[in-house]
Amino acid sequence: MNKLKNIRIVLCRTSHPGNIGSAARAMKTMGLFRLYLVRPRVFPHEDTYAMASGAVDVLENIRICDTLEQALAGCKLAIGMTARRRELSHAAFTPREIAVEAMQIASMSEVALVFGGETNGLSNEELIRCQKLAHIPANPEYSSLNLAAAVQVLAYELRMADEPSTKAASKMIELASLDEIEGFFQHLEQTLIESGFLNPQQPKRLMMRLRRLFTRATLQKEEVNILRGMLKTFKIRP
Amino acid sequence: MNKLKNIRIVLCRTSHPGNIGSAARAMKTMGLFRLYLVRPRVFPHEDTYAMASGAVDVLENIRICDTLEQALAGCKLAIGMTARRRELSHAAFTPREIAVEAMQIASMSEVALVFGGETNGLSNEELIRCQKLAHIPANPEYSSLNLAAAVQVLAYELRMADEPSTKAASKMIELASLDEIEGFFQHLEQTLIESGFLNPQQPKRLMMRLRRLFTRATLQKEEVNILRGMLKTFKIRP
Repeated sequence: MNKLKNIRIVLCRTSHPGNIGSAARAMKTMGLFRLYLVRPRVFPHEDTYAMASGAVDVLENIRICDTLEQALAGCKLAIGMTARRRELSHAAFTPREIAVEAMQIASMSEVALVFGGETNGLSNEELIRCQKLAHIPANPEYSSLNLAAAVQVLAYELRMADEPSTKAASKMIELASLDEIEGFFQHLEQTLIESGFLNPQQPKRLMMRLRRLFTRATLQKEEVNILRGMLKTFKIRP
Repeated sequence: MNKLKNIRIVLCRTSHPGNIGSAARAMKTMGLFRLYLVRPRVFPHEDTYAMASGAVDVLENIRICDTLEQALAGCKLAIGMTARRRELSHAAFTPREIAVEAMQIASMSEVALVFGGETNGLSNEELIRCQKLAHIPANPEYSSLNLAAAVQVLAYELRMADEPSTKAASKMIELASLDEIEGFFQHLEQTLIESGFLNPQQPKRLMMRLRRLFTRATLQKEEVNILRGMLKTFKIRP
């Protein structure tokens, strides 16, 4: 299923119609299509269409709402974007963290990402409607991302969370199968027992650490072959 | 030290002066300040300043070059951004992968991220000057990110790679220093030469692959200790 279809972007009280178009373009490049506007100052406008470039279909399906409540109808999770540190008291997640959570919920339910207007962001009343907050890490001396740029970063993280296969440029690179990875871990464990590095009575913690390390790297098929070839050359003294 | 200061953004043959300003703003929000332009079609222009918003200081320090070669002077690593799949033959990294690598190099040397023009991206001649390629995962049916949006995504990933503390768990975990990582690679190389796995006449490709694998994992201090302890137990038969 396409989890991205369950994610809507809600823009509250936008000032500049061009930003609506840029946001639509940012969304479509990452596979998001559902755009909601809450009381836009100006819409529609020719700038919106100019900035949307090839994402006019996103604009055609836009929903205009009078209140944030309407825009959130049917959602199980609403995530409010905040640029200000003072709001961080009620812990804000990074885009990366929130994207993982959003995609989990999106496999069953609808999720909204809520962005405030260009000048002041989300109001306190709007933030209260959001169960979670997210914050894009930024230069503390100039943290003012353009609205569409913020949408782009969040949409990018959603796509990254949706497609683990896009990691490691994996279109061209064949990742190792779970069997192959497990084969490598067995081989490694055996070699480490033979070398005396691993106590076979207490192998768990060390092997867990090594497993975690190699898991983080997302091993490729050819890399597993290299690693196993390497292990074979470690002929341990009897 | 501020590694972001060693990173320059190079925009080749931009068509729209507004995009230069938006890119400058995207950079500054993430703490990047060094912008190079190679043969912009129009610059300066009022749109550039309008779109830069509070990032006029980035524009004031801009460098204009006649050739990409000039813009890359002094860099140890040039990363070319590519939007097209056909170029992936010579494997492209994700922004996340390349950001980790860029920040490692930036701790010692200068790094350039090179973006092509709005219409056609980087030319083959320009791509050849880049040692690595990166590709933003995108909707295959509409992968056309706005130039400044692409800059924003890369700048965001650089900042995320610069601030491991913004990642969830890593507040508690001490990452290995570059010296420690380099010490491990030297130890690994020496062990592999002794075991006969590595031909000391031709070590480059294999060691590069192993370096890339461990770099992707972002090694922790304690993991480097474990790996080196492990290598020590491989007593090779004479």
